[in-house]
Parts: sequence; structure tokens; C-alpha cells
Amino acid sequence: MPSSIWPYNSPGIPDDLFERLPGIPLTKREVRLLLLSYLRLEQHSVVWDIGAGTGTIPVESGLLCPDAQIYAVERDEEVVDLIRHNCMRFGVKNVQVIQGIAPHCLEQLPKTPHRVCLEGGRDVHKTLEQVWGYLQPQGRVVAIANNLESLYRLSEGFSKLQARNIEVVQSSVNRLETRGPMQVFAAVDPIFILSGEKL
Amino acid sequence: MPSSIWPYNSPGIPDDLFERLPGIPLTKREVRLLLLSYLRLEQHSVVWDIGAGTGTIPVESGLLCPDAQIYAVERDEEVVDLIRHNCMRFGVKNVQVIQGIAPHCLEQLPKTPHRVCLEGGRDVHKTLEQVWGYLQPQGRVVAIANNLESLYRLSEGFSKLQARNIEVVQSSVNRLETRGPMQVFAAVDPIFILSGEKL
Amino acid sequence: MPSSIWPYNSPGIPDDLFERLPGIPLTKREVRLLLLSYLRLEQHSVVWDIGAGTGTIPVESGLLCPDAQIYAVERDEEVVDLIRHNCMRFGVKNVQVIQGIAPHCLEQLPKTPHRVCLEGGRDVHKTLEQVWGYLQPQGRVVAIANNLESLYRLSEGFSKLQARNIEVVQSSVNRLETRGPMQVFAAVDPIFILSGEKL
Amino acid sequence: MPSSIWPYNSPGIPDDLFERLPGIPLTKREVRLLLLSYLRLEQHSVVWDIGAGTGTIPVESGLLCPDAQIYAVERDEEVVDLIRHNCMRFGVKNVQVIQGIAPHCLEQLPKTPHRVCLEGGRDVHKTLEQVWGYLQPQGRVVAIANNLESLYRLSEGFSKLQARNIEVVQSSVNRLETRGPMQVFAAVDPIFILSGEKL
Repeated sequence: MPSSIWPYNSPGIPDDLFERLPGIPLTKREVRLLLLSYLRLEQHSVVWDIGAGTGTIPVESGLLCPDAQIYAVERDEEVVDLIRHNCMRFGVKNVQVIQGIAPHCLEQLPKTPHRVCLEGGRDVHKTLEQVWGYLQPQGRVVAIANNLESLYRLSEGFSKLQARNIEVVQSSVNRLETRGPMQVFAAVDPIFILSGEKL
Repeated sequence: MPSSIWPYNSPGIPDDLFERLPGIPLTKREVRLLLLSYLRLEQHSVVWDIGAGTGTIPVESGLLCPDAQIYAVERDEEVVDLIRHNCMRFGVKNVQVIQGIAPHCLEQLPKTPHRVCLEGGRDVHKTLEQVWGYLQPQGRVVAIANNLESLYRLSEGFSKLQARNIEVVQSSVNRLETRGPMQVFAAVDPIFILSGEKL
Repeated sequence: MPSSIWPYNSPGIPDDLFERLPGIPLTKREVRLLLLSYLRLEQHSVVWDIGAGTGTIPVESGLLCPDAQIYAVERDEEVVDLIRHNCMRFGVKNVQVIQGIAPHCLEQLPKTPHRVCLEGGRDVHKTLEQVWGYLQPQGRVVAIANNLESLYRLSEGFSKLQARNIEVVQSSVNRLETRGPMQVFAAVDPIFILSGEKL
Repeated sequence: MPSSIWPYNSPGIPDDLFERLPGIPLTKREVRLLLLSYLRLEQHSVVWDIGAGTGTIPVESGLLCPDAQIYAVERDEEVVDLIRHNCMRFGVKNVQVIQGIAPHCLEQLPKTPHRVCLEGGRDVHKTLEQVWGYLQPQGRVVAIANNLESLYRLSEGFSKLQARNIEVVQSSVNRLETRGPMQVFAAVDPIFILSGEKL
């Protein structure tokens, strides 16, 4: 029974269909598509989304995999509510939102994950190390870097953990935006996406 | 019953998992993800894919929507076989491949489509016009342009046809490729993706 | 005798060294470098810069070629003053600023140009046609497009005028910006630069 | 007395005007323009170019600053000859090519530099440290990174050396290439350019 607001099997919900809070990051459609692809979600995956922000990844994951168990971790109460709100908005019922700070709060999470999405946090590379211990064999971690330090630390982190099939892509999509009678080229800020698999 | 070679709910199959023929274009993963997103596939969609090349869009569409009816149009017999082969490889059973040249062959296609993907052909903007006549109300067309002429003609075409929700994005992904001990930045040639909806 | 504020032979003055007015476009350093390169300025060139905005091209051209004769055309009085101010600021003495609207005002310009830079205006492709008539043999025109319509019309325009050595590049530079302790990737909006030469 | 083959004051010589050797890297026009800009060359600068490859930076620097003293360092004899050849081709007389391996060979270089361009080598970040010792106060170093390791090490290196005005840009230019009747978008592989100034 698909969502009434996004009644499609395709992922890639337009950014403006989500409820937003000022200052809370939203993972843009083009980046989200890459994250979902590298996550390689399975029907019954246990998914952790750390630093879930607006909740776009939980929503899209829940729509793609209604039988998966998705845990979204956020430290800010207001943002926790935002994620819950967006899940309801899209009719997603298999997301549980946990308020807490990674990596400390990860112990509270009920199941060892098959898939982990690292969307935020200053020290994502430290969270990567912690998370790797919980990850099931053949599990996958996908992480975002919007700055050079994270990019390098995550790349180094995946290497040290001897992750398999490490992939790094930089998404630098331009959108043609209508301004008056013209279609002006506008850049989406470039984001790096890293992923790797546990033996 | 998912594919054994891609047993995931996520779209975005790595390029090298497809069978290939020299010289036959393959729509790269990053571009494919955007196409699938803009197609907004529904469970029972009738999908036309024109200029299907290696068959990546039929395969991914078939996996996302096993109950959809997908028609792939290609003019070259050898490429028709390649598409069939790739569908078998991924266990996709709801794709029918039609050998023919658009727009002439479109009359042979059994149903008016909900979704059309224009992947190839020199005069895509002419095919766009033809296809628009067959398209059902609320239907969507998504088209690729890798050159300036197509980009402009398609953009102009969608305008003339009074398509709604016209969107244009340019995908210019960079991949970090491992060369010896180094991870070198390599560009994927930029592609424009245009889409629009019928009233 | 070089400028005290930019005492270098290299072009590419940082954007923030120019005086600015709110709302007046400034051609960014990365784009400016490409414009200057495609202009192929000569020591005694007569240069027209149409839609000069903040005056970055007149300033850089004047510094590269102190013996050239540079004419900057702008319609808005306030912006005319801004260009003069920036020329003074950088010690550039060979720029004359003309207030007027292209193509009408071009008749007032004292000499047929060797080089023309088209930085602005809605109908740059119309100005291109006018300017081509004034252009000396072996002369060059370089034009900016930040929207699809201009990009296509200019490309078409250069073809119709049978320009030689037509080149089109899209500059899509990302800058690593320091935000707190992090260096975040930020995109400069993509700009197309077209150029061609008269027989 | 300008070059007969590039009789312009503008930098940015087209790539195909240089003599080339198979396998020897050539710093592409778009990247070269950024390097020259960040070098901020002065009339009497002493310039070191390390890993000079095809010699594009020595040639362009020599044309911009005929009174500068430019030293190009290359380890391979054949490439040393290529650089000399390209300097002659463009009438550049103020470049001295030194055969050697950085950082060992740097002692042989006759003068402490005002400007250093690091174009190549596996361990550019180590060369950066060495070079910084020789660099004159207010001197500038500009370096290229085409891989993640170099990008990070160079960024870290400039920080440790307490360089001022550190700037990092990623050049990801697309060129519109004519293929038959079409103008196809083609990407130039992205390159990072880092620069910093000594106190």
C-alpha cells in the first residue's frame, strides 16, 4: 500500500515534499539516490541511519523496503519529532526514531544492523569504527562527506577496517532553475559518498 | 522473488554487472538513478523505453516494478538480443523487446504508455512529439541529452507541448578510482536529464 | 608600473578585492580567467566589453595590456561609476566607460574592435550579430551564458556567422571553503563560455 | 617581443599547441590558468616548477614574465628535452631546465624562490615541506592534487607550515566537443589546486 503523497516505486522524492525545520540539513534528492543505491537495501534489512536530519533516508528506505526494520538516530528532540512527522506524512510505518548521540547511544539499538547510513556528525570516522563492530558480516556502511577532513578520514577508516568494495563518488549535480523567462544553471553543493562492505 | 545477481530493493546496479557489446551505449549508474527517479514508476505502469541500448533501464524498471509492462525499443537486432540477455541475467520477466525504429515502430506497441524513457536517437525531440500523442494523461516522459542540440530541442519541445513540472538536471559525477596505491578523481561525462508530465 | 593592489603579472584577481554594488553581477575569478584566455588579448587590441557589470574584465584586461584601448559599455549610471571606480582602484588608465544600451550605443564607440567580450544582456545572441559586423578580420568574440536559452542562441549564432575555431566550455569550479574547523566543498554556479573568430 | 605561435598577452595556450610525448602529463589549459593565477607571478620572480612534465607552466610563466627567472625540475632526460623544445617553440628564453629528483636536486638550484609550482611527484606533501624552507618570505607555493591522498596531505601540509591565505579549488570543467554534427558534453578530469603564502 504505497504512500498517497509519493505513490511510486521509484525512489527520489523531490526535496520540497518533505516537512522541514530551519537549519536542519536535508539530504538532497540527487545525493539520496546515490546513498540508497550504495546501501543495497534488502527486503528484511535492519538499517541504522545515524544523523538522520530531516529523515529523508528513513522515509525512502521505508518506502523501498516496507518489511525492513529501520532505526533513525538523532540527538535533538525537535529533529526526532520532525523525522517521525515525515514518516507519518509518507505513510512509512517501519521506522523507529531513537534520540541519542552516536556512538554512545548505539548500545540501545535493538539489533545488529545489516546496513548503516552515516549522514552526519563531526567525527563520522570515529562513528564508522564503532559501527563496524556492530555490523553483520556482508553488511554495508555508506557515509556522506561534505568536507575534506571527513572525506579523508572516512576513506582512511574504510581502508583500516579492511572493508571490501570500497567506492567513493562525488555528486556534483547542476539543476536548471527557472528564473523568469530563463532557465539558469545552478549548482548543488558537491557531496562525497563513500561505501564499503564487511567480510 | 528478487534477482540472484542483484538481490536488493535498491536500484543502481553497478555498470560492470551488465553484459555489454562493444560500441553499444550503457546508461551509467549515476544517470540511471536519476532517470528512474524522474520516471516515477508505479506498480502497474506501462513503460516504453526508446533507444534502450544495453537494457539497463528495462532491467532496473523490471526489478523495481515486477508487475509493470515494459516495452524496450531498439533498431539493431544484435542489441535487441543483448537487452533480452540482460533481462534474463537479472531474472526480469516483464520486459518485451521490440525491434524497430522510432517513431515509425511505435504504432506496433500494444498499449498507450504511462511512462516513456527516451534514451537515444538523433532526433529525440521529434520522437518526443510523437510519443506525447500516445502518452496517457498524468503520464511522464524522461529524456537524456548528451549534446547541446538535443538539450535545447528537448527543452523547447517540452515547453511547446505544455508539459507540466518540467525539470532539467545535469549529472556530473566524479568517481574516485583506485590506480595503484592512489585514488584518482575521474569524471563521468556530464549528461542532461529532462522530464515533464502530461496534463 | 603595476597596480599597488594587484602588483602581479598573473590575471585572476580575487573577487573580494573589487568594489561591489548590491545586485550588480561580478564575473567570478575562475570564469574571468577563461574569458581572458579566450579573448587572446594583444598589446594594442581595441577591446569592447559589453555588459561590463562590476568591471572585472576591463580591470584585468587593462592590467594585462596597458597599451590596449578598452571600451566598457553599461546602461546604468551607477554601474558606470562602479567600473570607473574599480579601474582607478587598480591603477588602470586605458579603460573608457560608455553609458548606453547595446546594440544601439555601439555606433558611438570610436573604433572597430579586435576583441569583444559579451558579458550580459538578455538578448546576447542579437548583440552578437550586431557586434560581428563591427569586428575586424581575425577578431574574436567571447560570450558568457548562464542560462540554456543564451547558451543555445549563442552557439547557433556563432555557427550562422560562420565563426572559426568555435569553442564552448562549462566552468563548474568547486571551492573548499573554511567553515569553523572544516573545509567544506562549495560549488560556484556553472557558467558556459563561448568563443569564435572572424575570418 | 611576443611569441609568434602565441602572440597574445593572455595566458591559456590551447593544449594542442604544445609538443607532446606519449605518457607525459600535460597540465590542461583550464587548470593551468588557475595555477598561474594562484602563483601571482611578479615581473622579477624566481620561480621553481617541480615535476614540470610537458613544460606548459614554464612556457606560460615565461611569456607572462619575460624578466622572471624560471627553473623547471624534471627527472627524466627525455622530458627535460621536451620542456626545452616547448620553450624554444614559444620563444621563451628565461627558463632553465634542471634534470633531477626533488627534493634532493633542489640544493643545486641557484636561488631561493619567490614562487613554487608543485605539479607532480608521488609525495608532493614531502616536497612541499622541503620547498617551504627555501621559499622567501611572502613567497607562494601552488600545488596540484589529482588524488585524494595528495589532496589531504597537501592540505594538512599547508596547515602545519602555517601558510597564510590557503585556498583550495577543484576545477571540473566540461568542454563541448564537436562530434559529427553534434556538440557533445565531455568532462575534463577534476583536479584540485591548493595554494598558500609564507609569512
